[in-house]
Parts: sequence; structure tokens; C-alpha cells
Amino acid sequence: MAEGYCAGVDLGGTNIKAGLLDAEAHVLASLSVPTEVDRGRDTVVSNIITAAERVIADAGVDRSQVIGIGIGSPGPMSHRRGLIINPGNLPCMKDTPLREIMTERTGIKTTLDNDANAAAWGEFWAGAGKGVSDFLMFTLGTGVGGGVIVDGKLLRGYFENGSELGHIIVQPGGRRCSCGQLGCMEAYSSAYNLARRAEELIADGKSSQLKARIDAGEMLMAEHIVEAARRGDSVAEQVWDEACYYLGAAIVTMQHVSNPERVVLAGGMIAAGDFLLERVRKHAKALTWTLLDDLADIRFATLGNDAGFIGAAGCAWEAHRTGEW
Amino acid sequence: MAEGYCAGVDLGGTNIKAGLLDAEAHVLASLSVPTEVDRGRDTVVSNIITAAERVIADAGVDRSQVIGIGIGSPGPMSHRRGLIINPGNLPCMKDTPLREIMTERTGIKTTLDNDANAAAWGEFWAGAGKGVSDFLMFTLGTGVGGGVIVDGKLLRGYFENGSELGHIIVQPGGRRCSCGQLGCMEAYSSAYNLARRAEELIADGKSSQLKARIDAGEMLMAEHIVEAARRGDSVAEQVWDEACYYLGAAIVTMQHVSNPERVVLAGGMIAAGDFLLERVRKHAKALTWTLLDDLADIRFATLGNDAGFIGAAGCAWEAHRTGEW
Repeated sequence: MAEGYCAGVDLGGTNIKAGLLDAEAHVLASLSVPTEVDRGRDTVVSNIITAAERVIADAGVDRSQVIGIGIGSPGPMSHRRGLIINPGNLPCMKDTPLREIMTERTGIKTTLDNDANAAAWGEFWAGAGKGVSDFLMFTLGTGVGGGVIVDGKLLRGYFENGSELGHIIVQPGGRRCSCGQLGCMEAYSSAYNLARRAEELIADGKSSQLKARIDAGEMLMAEHIVEAARRGDSVAEQVWDEACYYLGAAIVTMQHVSNPERVVLAGGMIAAGDFLLERVRKHAKALTWTLLDDLADIRFATLGNDAGFIGAAGCAWEAHRTGEW
Repeated sequence: MAEGYCAGVDLGGTNIKAGLLDAEAHVLASLSVPTEVDRGRDTVVSNIITAAERVIADAGVDRSQVIGIGIGSPGPMSHRRGLIINPGNLPCMKDTPLREIMTERTGIKTTLDNDANAAAWGEFWAGAGKGVSDFLMFTLGTGVGGGVIVDGKLLRGYFENGSELGHIIVQPGGRRCSCGQLGCMEAYSSAYNLARRAEELIADGKSSQLKARIDAGEMLMAEHIVEAARRGDSVAEQVWDEACYYLGAAIVTMQHVSNPERVVLAGGMIAAGDFLLERVRKHAKALTWTLLDDLADIRFATLGNDAGFIGAAGCAWEAHRTGEW
């Protein structure tokens, strides 16, 4: 077993989560602090450093035993260059060479990865993907994030925008996605789009229990759709079924591309429980080929919101192990 | 530079192609002999061995300098187990542990790979993918074969059925593919399906110059569609445009999954030249996101029918280099 510790930092638009982990993915200390985006880049960078320093101190570990820091950042970013490029929810961090800044200011080697990739690495290393070599994860939140592990390695791609599974085209000419494409899986299966899709159908005149919320000036949320679908509301049921169907189609496409042993679903939408999981499994099974029995086992993530910092620490361990540093 | 030579064998339903290559992908000798499927497994195995022995002899190379043999075989097969499982066009080779048989009978280490993967490796190593680390290839023939290289390694997947790019779902609920799925890219973009799709439209009553061929009892071929589309026949144009459109959609999906630097098109259909390439590029560009400029460079393969045995020899070199043997 490797000795020492790595810190993991999950840089989000609202909070920074951090933890100190050993090589076996045990969390010795963890915390969450506000990102304070509004106060600008210097504050955000200081908050990241403070969070990392604090988990080291909280764990009572000697600083010399800290091998590295891993940071999961919203994209677009570059792992190779250690650079945050232009994250939508962290505008002040545009073009920040965070890896260099961290290394300089802490004296500890740092590695930077896409937050969705880091979270997938977390589940792969310490959660629902443990013990599996070919794995992928969909994070079903406002958008749909993805992370793909091929033969034990993160799939980053030449332009470092690989594993963007939410942008698999599942319905050519379909709904417009925020990325500019038509018919992305995210345009049907993310929490945000699920709600917008219901609003569209209701605006088109379809009858739904959800109309009362819209009339009351409420913004529809994914939870409302799930709740109404469970009660048998036909608009909610249609939209929910579509979301699960297109996710199933993306899983089948990935079955033929990276051919994973296991597919893990994470993010806020997994609160729907079996109502989601059973439906996605049913659609994937109906959509897949009859030639061979190689559909991945589909299950839920187990690390919750900790996957990000755990995976970021795991990426640091991986940078150490593979000699990236 | 590594010394020695590897033999590559491309095992097809009609012919066995073989060559002897050095570590720099120079072909010292090559040949093609009939597979003789009808004569059964022992004959086919003997023909494979004879082909490999002959290219070694033809090259005038000392047998002791031959490091290994690579074989590209139709799937389903297992690289890990060195086993041909159940290839549609080589029924006599069902459940043949070809790797062991070859090693025993020739005394030379052997590695077995899927033929589409071997061909992709050939273009990656010595053809249109040379110098690129993240690459993928579509082989547009009767079906659509695929091969994906991620960071210099073949993507095989946990069940060893990865890189089956023809079975990306591009139109949920669409045309039935021979694999059992609905709406596979292959169901629109392969030579076989292109012709069937035209027949369907004509049977539905659409007017086309191609009807004369059908009435004369001819079976439509992809070449006929291309020819008629060039002349402006509306059915042929529709079917051809669909084929290019869905190939473009699959390329965009792969842009977001493996994020390659280059995409190569191979197989019989590339005889259509710019009529194919420009159309696919146009559709991919129209389908991709506006967020970032990371669409792969799309171009034609350069090794033609030799890609299979060249890639098979390359897989043998790779088995040697990575210590697989």
C-alpha cells in the first residue's frame, strides 16, 4: 500500500468541498465552504487553498506526508495544461492556470480534472464502480455529466472534451440543447430539461395537474414531474418515460462503444429511486441488440455529493501512481 | 527501432490475406489465398498457417527473427481468450481456440483480434491515422465496422464487444438492424442497407430511375444508389443523404465520447469519393455543438484492403511491445 495522503477539492459554483484521503480511499477529514464567486478570483483561489490546508490540519497529518492535491473543476478546462478555461458558473475563474497557482502557493503537487470526470473516478475508485475496470457514469443534474473509464483509465480524449455523455445525439433534429445541438440526451434526460419539456407540452394545450403550479407562477422542477408521474399524470408520465428512454438509448450506444461492465447513475435525479432505475433498465433492455448478452449492469452511485472531492483526491493518487508528476 | 518481423493475417469469409512486416510497418511480402470455408475447419486453419509461413519464406527472413503472428478474425471473438466464437461468414470456425492452435503448430507467439479493430489499428499505425493518438475508423461495407483508439490503445471493452460503431443508435425506433436493434447507424449507412432502403421507398410507390433495375430482377447495390443520386434521382438522393446524415450524427456522438483528433472512413463505400466525404463533413458540421471547436478531422483511409493484415501484424507488434506475450 502506498503511504501518505492526497487532498481532493471539488470546486463548485456555490461550495468548495474538500477532503484528505489515504491511498485506500479512506476519508480522514472533509469540509464544505462557500466558493464566494462574487468576490472574484483571488478570493476563490484563497478559499480553495484554505480548504485544502484545513483538511490536512483537521486530519492531524504532517504536511510532508501530503503527496498531492487533486481538483475537480467545471469545464471547459484542460487537464494537460492545468487550466480552467471558461466555466459557466465560475466566470471569475476564466483562463486561470490553477495547477501552477496551487503548486506555487502550497508547495504541493496539484492535478486538475473536469468535475464530472473526477466524480466518475470517485465512484470508480471508492463507490459503485469499485472492482470494475470498464465503467461509466451519468450524473443527472441540471445538465447531464459523464465520465468514462476504459481499462482502468479516464477517457479524456484528444481535445480533452471526451466523456461528455449528455451530448450523445439520441434524437436527430430533436430538442435544442444548451450546447447548440439538436436532440442531445441532456435535452430530454436532465432535471432542467425534464421540467421544460413538461411546460412545453402544457403550453401546447395538453391537460396536466402540473398546470396549477405554472398558473401559480411556480417554476416546474424535476421533483414535481416525478411526483406527478407517480400519481399517473399523463404529461408527467410521458416526459418521465422519454427521459428514461433516451437515457436507455445512450446506455445502449455506450454498450457498443466503450462496452462497460457497469453503468452508474448519479446526481439529484436519482432521488427518484426505483421509479428511475427500473424504468431505465427496462428501456435499455428493450433497446439493445439480441446478438449477445453484454448490456452493462445499471445501478446507482453510492458516494452522493462526496464523489467529487473523493474522485479529485483519487485523480491525485493516479497522477502519483502513473508518474504524471 | 525494434528488430525482427511480425506476420499479419486477415481472415475473411472468401480470402485470407497475409503479410510480413517490420516494426516500422514496412511490408516485406504479402499474398492472398482462398479461405476455402466449405472444406471445413482443418483446411481453413492449414490455409492460415500456410499463408503465414509463405510470407515469411517469400520475404527471405530467418524464422528465428519472426517475433509473432497477429490474426484479424470476424467477430464475435475474444482477444483475451484467443478464441473465435461464432463468426457469421465462417461457421466452420465456431469455438476455435485459434491462438493456441497457431502457437502450437507454428511455434510462434500469436495474438487474435477482431478484424474491424485490426483494420483500424492498421490505419492508425501505418495509414490515415499515423501520428495521431486518439482516432477512430468506420468501415462502410455490407455492414459498418468500427475501431476506436484511445490514447494509443485499442478500445476493446469489458465484454470485448466495444468499438462496434455501426450499432450506435441514431434513430430510436427506426429501421431494424440485423443485430436486432432499431435505428442503428448501420441500418442506414451501410452499403447493404442503403440499397434496401431505396427498395423500400420504391415499393412504397416513390418514383425512381432505380425501379427499372428492380423490375428487371436485379438486386440493387450501393453503387447503383450513388450513381442515381449523382444523376439527381430523388429516391437515391434521399437515401444517400440519410446515409451521410446518420454517419455524421454518429461522428458527432463519438466526438463527445472518445473525442478523437481524426475520424477515418474506410470500406467499399469510400469509392464514392468526395460525394461521400463532403456530404458527411457537411452533416457532421451542421450537427455538432457550437460550444467548442473540437470536431475531428474526417478523411478517407489509405491502406485499402491491406489494412486488415497490416493492422493484424501491428497488433502482434503491440502484443510484443506491451508485454502481453
